[in-house]
Amino acid sequence: MAFLCKKLINDPNDVVIEFIEGLVETYPGLQYLDGFPEVKVVLRADVSSATYDKVAVISGGGSGHEPAHAGFVGEGMLTAAICGDVFASPPVDSILAGIRAVTGPMGCLLIVKNYTGDRLNFGLAAEQAKSEGYRVEMVIVGDDCALPPPRGIAGRRGLAGTILVHKVAGAAASCGLSLGEVAAEAQRASEMVGTMGVALSVCTLPGQVTSDRLGPGKMELGLGIHGEPGAAVADLQSVDVVVSHVLNQILSQETNYVPIRRGSRVVLMINGLGATPLMELMIAAGKAVPKLQLEHGLAVDRVYTGSFMTSLDMAGFSITVMKADEAILDRLDAPTKAPNWPVGADGNRPPAKIPVPLPPSRTTKNDETSNRPTQLNPQGNILEVAIEAAATAVINLRDSLNDWDSKVGDGDCGSTMFRGASAILEDIKSYPLNDPAETLNEIGSSIRRVMGGTSGIIYDIFCKAAYAQLKADSHSVITPLHWAGAFEAAIAAVSKYGGASAGYRTLLDALIPASSVLKEKLTAGDDPVEAFVFSAEAAVAGAESTKHMLALAGRSSYVSTDILASVPDPGAMAAASWYRAAAIAVKDKHRAL
Amino acid sequence: MAFLCKKLINDPNDVVIEFIEGLVETYPGLQYLDGFPEVKVVLRADVSSATYDKVAVISGGGSGHEPAHAGFVGEGMLTAAICGDVFASPPVDSILAGIRAVTGPMGCLLIVKNYTGDRLNFGLAAEQAKSEGYRVEMVIVGDDCALPPPRGIAGRRGLAGTILVHKVAGAAASCGLSLGEVAAEAQRASEMVGTMGVALSVCTLPGQVTSDRLGPGKMELGLGIHGEPGAAVADLQSVDVVVSHVLNQILSQETNYVPIRRGSRVVLMINGLGATPLMELMIAAGKAVPKLQLEHGLAVDRVYTGSFMTSLDMAGFSITVMKADEAILDRLDAPTKAPNWPVGADGNRPPAKIPVPLPPSRTTKNDETSNRPTQLNPQGNILEVAIEAAATAVINLRDSLNDWDSKVGDGDCGSTMFRGASAILEDIKSYPLNDPAETLNEIGSSIRRVMGGTSGIIYDIFCKAAYAQLKADSHSVITPLHWAGAFEAAIAAVSKYGGASAGYRTLLDALIPASSVLKEKLTAGDDPVEAFVFSAEAAVAGAESTKHMLALAGRSSYVSTDILASVPDPGAMAAASWYRAAAIAVKDKHRAL
Repeated sequence: MAFLCKKLINDPNDVVIEFIEGLVETYPGLQYLDGFPEVKVVLRADVSSATYDKVAVISGGGSGHEPAHAGFVGEGMLTAAICGDVFASPPVDSILAGIRAVTGPMGCLLIVKNYTGDRLNFGLAAEQAKSEGYRVEMVIVGDDCALPPPRGIAGRRGLAGTILVHKVAGAAASCGLSLGEVAAEAQRASEMVGTMGVALSVCTLPGQVTSDRLGPGKMELGLGIHGEPGAAVADLQSVDVVVSHVLNQILSQETNYVPIRRGSRVVLMINGLGATPLMELMIAAGKAVPKLQLEHGLAVDRVYTGSFMTSLDMAGFSITVMKADEAILDRLDAPTKAPNWPVGADGNRPPAKIPVPLPPSRTTKNDETSNRPTQLNPQGNILEVAIEAAATAVINLRDSLNDWDSKVGDGDCGSTMFRGASAILEDIKSYPLNDPAETLNEIGSSIRRVMGGTSGIIYDIFCKAAYAQLKADSHSVITPLHWAGAFEAAIAAVSKYGGASAGYRTLLDALIPASSVLKEKLTAGDDPVEAFVFSAEAAVAGAESTKHMLALAGRSSYVSTDILASVPDPGAMAAASWYRAAAIAVKDKHRAL
Repeated sequence: MAFLCKKLINDPNDVVIEFIEGLVETYPGLQYLDGFPEVKVVLRADVSSATYDKVAVISGGGSGHEPAHAGFVGEGMLTAAICGDVFASPPVDSILAGIRAVTGPMGCLLIVKNYTGDRLNFGLAAEQAKSEGYRVEMVIVGDDCALPPPRGIAGRRGLAGTILVHKVAGAAASCGLSLGEVAAEAQRASEMVGTMGVALSVCTLPGQVTSDRLGPGKMELGLGIHGEPGAAVADLQSVDVVVSHVLNQILSQETNYVPIRRGSRVVLMINGLGATPLMELMIAAGKAVPKLQLEHGLAVDRVYTGSFMTSLDMAGFSITVMKADEAILDRLDAPTKAPNWPVGADGNRPPAKIPVPLPPSRTTKNDETSNRPTQLNPQGNILEVAIEAAATAVINLRDSLNDWDSKVGDGDCGSTMFRGASAILEDIKSYPLNDPAETLNEIGSSIRRVMGGTSGIIYDIFCKAAYAQLKADSHSVITPLHWAGAFEAAIAAVSKYGGASAGYRTLLDALIPASSVLKEKLTAGDDPVEAFVFSAEAAVAGAESTKHMLALAGRSSYVSTDILASVPDPGAMAAASWYRAAAIAVKDKHRAL
């Protein structure tokens, strides 16, 4: 089932040019040589060959490996990148233009991945540049560890390990070393590094048909970065198994591709091949490090995880292991302005985990604030009565709430509220009732312990916000205005976190009118108990009025207006009901005193 | 055709934990709270709540958006990231643990993407933390511009614009501002930013079946980052058209989601959704900038291109536009150690293109070095004879070369060499024959002009390397030892760039023995002409000996040993032939003098 690949591009022939245009828009430190279509060279905006007093480090090759190589141009890494067409070596004239643009009297080092086309084109450009009087050296990187030697004239392919060679050379050049010294460091780095890739999908060239070479449940091991088939096809395994296999292959004593032995220090690169999410790359990194440490006996000094040298939209990754020492680490850690060199991977490793902090200790609190007091004070007495009345009202309303909710929601509002109210009645015997703020806090916890979903969390927010406001406002005595302030704060928190306002057909349509009336009456100097009762009537009226509201939240928003008009919002009715029951209970208790 | 998704993971339930483990292995500046499985919090390794004297900036939400949010933890950006399970809001206790771990006396700002679950869980954690005495503020980001208002209680989704809000808040906190000031800057930033996404494929949750919702040739516009369907499905268009549509939608005066008007300054973010190659993101960036400038009349101050807030392995991107001013640019440009904040995007923009440098001018050279001299000197005379003899020998050998090559290669070696030799004979009338080095340079150019493929480039390398060596060694007089040195350098360059050595069954098997003999005889003080002729015999013997070699390069490496043993390597025979013809011509000429 082959079909034309889906890509967000324009003309497939223009992808490299348009990539470069986007790159220089993104990074003001980069420029390109205006010589399209043949010359596609990205270079440091701050380097001019006439005045450049360091060794220029130049790399490049076919495109389709982004961010390589252009994303590694910047002070401390590459001076220029020569971009060929997708998977095609750049022409000699383009390479030569790049050399001429950035090479000063210190000369330039060409770092070339080991592919015949790149070797020859860069080689000819190097010789041509020498004949023009430039000092030029070339280092060829072949870090592939997938296939056994001998590899004949083609040799080992250049893969993601080349990025590490770029960094070593760029940092060495940045220190002002001579061309010979920079080339020697790059050569040494290239001999220290090994890479192997794994793919889950084949890459598709722009404008081409997607291959179905790799079927479901299969992966390819030991592939290159140009869509060529891998060394082997295998059933997809867990990444744990894949990482083990790849590391064993890279570090094989039989092929002896890298001079890494038990006790060596290494750096690790997990490189995405283009379409692999960072999550999967990090999982591979997390597995590779302990394997290198414990199974191979290596010290892992640095880990670089990301997509550095890709193969268009291929899903998969390559793993690179490089032997490290202080000299190489210094080069890798040296600062660079290259946009795609990973930041934050350097430095010493503190312990990765720290313990979860404990909540602030309650031991400083006395029993009064965390347990039911042996003797309730008058305020505690009233609070107990109000809580019991409120919870009982909700319990009694269970069936009506379920009934209303079955018309406009999922029919469990009554049952959910019932669970919360029952938990409160059960827990009330341990509430610190003489401390109303702490009691509200406990009510929130009781509710959330048993009420799942949105309503449980909203009521817990309501209680926690009221608690915090009471704590902030009052010290020893809690006045009715403190209560009104806490009520307001609780409503504000529910509105803020829940996203609803007045008129959204939610519990706020009961509570907001109640809060307004309460505050108004208290500010006017009315009797607090009367104000409470009066505000409760506003709550009930508000809840009833939800019949005429459109639903903007939750499931009710999918229900027709006709049905909505036949029932009030069950959440609002529940809120009005507990609020009113509490008010009446407080009034009765006061009358009884 | 649904099948289980292919991912490089282990147990799908462990992906977030294992991601975090890999993340902290990669970045030594990050730690995590050791409270798995519920608590998944990544935090700065250098911050402890007890001593932290700045406002902590905390974000998070469901996982599956990597590098968001954990990859943005670092000095100058987030202090901690709370990671939920894939696409699931983190539990309150995890958020609370994060708040407790990093919040000092200056308090903390929670930046939350606008999803009900996140609002409620972060909201409850905030209220709980306040009740424990912490100073907490929350800013909710809803930057989605895909759907028209009103959006009801759910409101606009939080998308990649949130990353810019993180950066503004983190930089403000880093300056030591108060909680209120940091929250105000974050709030203001959240009101300046709009985002819209486009997808080519649907993301697949770990361990789930891949949906085929989006068929071939289709794209979804205005989608979220949790796999929910987009606002519309359309036929896939060129990215140019897609970018125009998305920008028009974000900047629509009708929805008026962002306060951006003609003349405004903006920053742009092109964000990959997980499986989109950087090449495609850069192409979109390159198209978006001129559209913003020319069609919308905006100044584009910064461009951020990369994968910042992904949706697992979804192919596609989102575009974010944020209104900018000096205050916001200062925050965006401020340094940060967050590993995934893009580097190199700040600063002023120099011209993106610079002209291709011209080759070093030839105007300083006299006609003697760039044209045939009016009068040949004795050396020029001999050189002309040698070149003519060498080219003629190759021309005469055409059919034999083709015949040998048809057995071991593609049968065109004779024809290819014939083209090169003919071009030399044609161009020789303009060679600067009194300057042997320049003449070699011109021969290389003649060859590459007409000989395609590997052989043309290899002979050009040969000539250029010889030229450079002659230039370096000799000044006025070229001695036979200079010629031998140039020959050696040319062979070394061909071997280095082409990858072959002695015994690889290539032209080097003729040239290497010739070079050795020539140098040996000259060093021993033999007559130079005799040495030349003697070395030519070594070339012929070497070429004949290729019959007994295995092929390690090119097409011949696929040919059976029996056939290989029946013919010599045609490239080696051609090389021996022109070398020998030149030697004999030089000898004859000398005798004639």
